[in-house]
Amino acid sequence: MGTSKTEFWPKIEFWYEFASTYSYLAAERIQSLAQSNGMDIAWRPFLLGPIFKSQGWDTSPFGIYKAKGNYMWRDIERSADLYGLPFKKSDQVFPQNSILAARIALCLPDADQRGEFSKSAYRAEFSEGQNIAEPQVIAQILNNLGHDSDQLFQQAKSPDIKQALFANTAEAQEKGIFGAPSLITGDGELFWGDDRLEQALNWPKTSP
Amino acid sequence: MGTSKTEFWPKIEFWYEFASTYSYLAAERIQSLAQSNGMDIAWRPFLLGPIFKSQGWDTSPFGIYKAKGNYMWRDIERSADLYGLPFKKSDQVFPQNSILAARIALCLPDADQRGEFSKSAYRAEFSEGQNIAEPQVIAQILNNLGHDSDQLFQQAKSPDIKQALFANTAEAQEKGIFGAPSLITGDGELFWGDDRLEQALNWPKTSP
Repeated sequence: MGTSKTEFWPKIEFWYEFASTYSYLAAERIQSLAQSNGMDIAWRPFLLGPIFKSQGWDTSPFGIYKAKGNYMWRDIERSADLYGLPFKKSDQVFPQNSILAARIALCLPDADQRGEFSKSAYRAEFSEGQNIAEPQVIAQILNNLGHDSDQLFQQAKSPDIKQALFANTAEAQEKGIFGAPSLITGDGELFWGDDRLEQALNWPKTSP
Repeated sequence: MGTSKTEFWPKIEFWYEFASTYSYLAAERIQSLAQSNGMDIAWRPFLLGPIFKSQGWDTSPFGIYKAKGNYMWRDIERSADLYGLPFKKSDQVFPQNSILAARIALCLPDADQRGEFSKSAYRAEFSEGQNIAEPQVIAQILNNLGHDSDQLFQQAKSPDIKQALFANTAEAQEKGIFGAPSLITGDGELFWGDDRLEQALNWPKTSP
């Protein structure tokens, strides 16, 4: 009160799936939006596979529903163009197996490091035609970022990290998440989709 | 060329389903956006039911996938709020049976009349808690707009109108439409969702 400036929550949860095209767009855009509002990002990788399975789908809905899938690729292309982000539909399988990338991300607790790794993986996948299921692709990304890829690969196999990814996915589903990217504000508002990024980040903190 | 002003297609196809919440938002917003770009709107009502059926769904995905359905109602509420549009989730069944409304819309070939009727039906459905499957609800709307509801109800039962709705739905599916609202530009670009309205209406006409 006493000022007309909107107050924001100090932190927002960014829930993302490494195989998701729209998560790529959002991962590239979220940091500058969060920074403008003085907001920290909790990077929360999770797996959509188990959530889709619980809805009776054995793969991405973009694979199951052809018209929706065709549309998605064109929509991503147009949106990437509008945002000035590189995008190339590759010949790789879609959706890519994202378990390794998600586990590696969880080995990097520092938000900046996790964010940088995540964006690099998305770029490899969606603008460089690479397959992030391949360990050498992930190793290259880690080495480029100055990490010790051998050590992180070891850690990624540990029960703790496997359990952390399982727990993230369970928490996502408990919180009502059914797609990626999703965002959750300080007061629990759920937003779904790259096209809700602005709404989520501009969601005002209500006065206590 | 010779000017930096963007040229737009003279007309855009607006494909909408009377039972669709997001079509309501788009129907309320499209006219002022189209007007700013000197664009006419082709109001194209169609039925999502047969398209969903061909995807193996016997109702709206918002009914089949609970988390998605819960999210949709909250998302609509927030978006209506941002747009300054009235919205009230009613106790009526969802999705409502939209066949009568769609047939009546097709009895009104004039774009302004069809648009006004469509918006009135959406408001009855999504801000006044009424059921547009009920003939008296539609009759009231038509009478308020100065139409002869008896005459239009007769016409709505004619084979021509039934066939026109069937043909619209078939055309929508042929054009790759899988949800509502959808928009198609003069050069055949398909956009899906109220949140793509601006992108669709600002899609530039390429120089001939």
